[in-house]
Amino acid sequence: MKKLIFTFCLIAISISCNQQKTPNKNIVNDLDQKGITNQTPAIKKDYNLKADGSVYTDQELEAMSHDELIAVFREPPKDTVQTIGILLYDGYFMLDAMGPLSVLNHIPAKKILIGRNKGIVTSSDKVKIEVDHSIEEIDQLDILLVPGGVIETYNATKDQILLDWIKKIDQKSKYTLSVCTGAWILGAAGLLEGKEATTNWYRAKEKLNQFGATFVQKRYTNDGKYWTSAGVSAGIDMSLALIDHILGRNYAAFTALNLEYDPQPPFEGGHPDKTDRVVNFMTKKMYDHMLEPLITKD
Amino acid sequence: MKKLIFTFCLIAISISCNQQKTPNKNIVNDLDQKGITNQTPAIKKDYNLKADGSVYTDQELEAMSHDELIAVFREPPKDTVQTIGILLYDGYFMLDAMGPLSVLNHIPAKKILIGRNKGIVTSSDKVKIEVDHSIEEIDQLDILLVPGGVIETYNATKDQILLDWIKKIDQKSKYTLSVCTGAWILGAAGLLEGKEATTNWYRAKEKLNQFGATFVQKRYTNDGKYWTSAGVSAGIDMSLALIDHILGRNYAAFTALNLEYDPQPPFEGGHPDKTDRVVNFMTKKMYDHMLEPLITKD
Repeated sequence: MKKLIFTFCLIAISISCNQQKTPNKNIVNDLDQKGITNQTPAIKKDYNLKADGSVYTDQELEAMSHDELIAVFREPPKDTVQTIGILLYDGYFMLDAMGPLSVLNHIPAKKILIGRNKGIVTSSDKVKIEVDHSIEEIDQLDILLVPGGVIETYNATKDQILLDWIKKIDQKSKYTLSVCTGAWILGAAGLLEGKEATTNWYRAKEKLNQFGATFVQKRYTNDGKYWTSAGVSAGIDMSLALIDHILGRNYAAFTALNLEYDPQPPFEGGHPDKTDRVVNFMTKKMYDHMLEPLITKD
Repeated sequence: MKKLIFTFCLIAISISCNQQKTPNKNIVNDLDQKGITNQTPAIKKDYNLKADGSVYTDQELEAMSHDELIAVFREPPKDTVQTIGILLYDGYFMLDAMGPLSVLNHIPAKKILIGRNKGIVTSSDKVKIEVDHSIEEIDQLDILLVPGGVIETYNATKDQILLDWIKKIDQKSKYTLSVCTGAWILGAAGLLEGKEATTNWYRAKEKLNQFGATFVQKRYTNDGKYWTSAGVSAGIDMSLALIDHILGRNYAAFTALNLEYDPQPPFEGGHPDKTDRVVNFMTKKMYDHMLEPLITKD
């Protein structure tokens, strides 16, 4: 499936790139200016309009070739992204990396799983992934994403070889991303100094302040090229927002549709503010049990 | 992190199991009966109450040991689950399996990644995972989850060895799950005959009817032990609902908190009903291009 998606997407992007000198067709902004996005959901949903401003009918869309649909679909990208690297290290939290990868995979670029070491990397939940390269083999990336975890993530903040590699990649990256406590690693590499950032809720302010960053309580945030997300699953939201930023709303909407990303959790939760306090304290004490012996040594 | 979570969880569950003969302390239902869940969010959030019905203060919770918190936290599980198997086959869609695995990993049971073949299984998005066992080596599972994909998923519906294995596992399973077009595989194995089910939006009704199932347009659904979800990311919601069902709301809330699963997509979308029709038609035609040559041969 991906192969074909990429083929289609590459066509879409290459058409877009070739036309980048034409006036920027920012559909969503145009609609915002016209106030159309505040009208009925039907109009808001169908924002790709015909030249005369009217909505395409289903019959018209059914009759259009894929290329014709792509021509309507395309928006000039904000950036050219050729390489996306996801760092994996033993003990990383699997969904921190695999959630964003599933989203970022929709960007027509080379995706590289980069291990702290070569071979198989094992996540905290024991998923064994064969990486494409070790950090020693990669010198440049347009996008770097650093996932979080618990004890091993803390240990990564003391791994000078890893931190030096991250700093090197960051010097030329277009976007440097972290998910969850991955922000602790970016922080330890000195990349969040003076920046706004977010991270997993546990000791969020304390840890980010330690690295000279300002904690903002958001699902995800960006300060220039540094995009950071809250815990684990927040990396999915951040990655989708990054696609929206780089490739535009149509492309992001296509990505969301392909992932059927219309989340409907069975109950409200997932953040201390939305969770019973007995559950909160139990979870916090569990993290304390794991991390306090390490953190108090700092 | 997982190791410790499991230790804590095992303690919680073993305490719960030992006490299963005591009256079922169904906190959420109790609250529903009292109408408390319709009151202010603060009360709704703090549903674990003291014996006298009052809310714990932060000071009281801070002073409690982990074991004391667990004693408040525990609920008798509905089922004993000892083994959870996730099927992986070349070309499966990675997040279909890895999203649910991240959630189901919180159940204190043995998790097994089971390959159609031994060794490395490669997802449609080129993630190479080393599986624990091949299907030949696994005879029994309490929970089986079957992920979807596109062309290779269609091909799996014709793979008689795989279908026979799924039928064998299903004979003794407590729960049989599918994500996205994984329902096509369960359907081809004859397991959804006369059942309500859901799947990815593409040809959903047509495909499920083909297998004698009734399509219900829900994010996830269950008909007896058969739990099915809509496309890709819906498997996360389904898995969290399954934990809620088996282990209760406290355990599910802990899982959501550990995954910080409080999704906030950057825009509304992820379903044809919420997506611009140009994007819908483009995506549908892309799927048609991949699947029509196969489906029309049926």
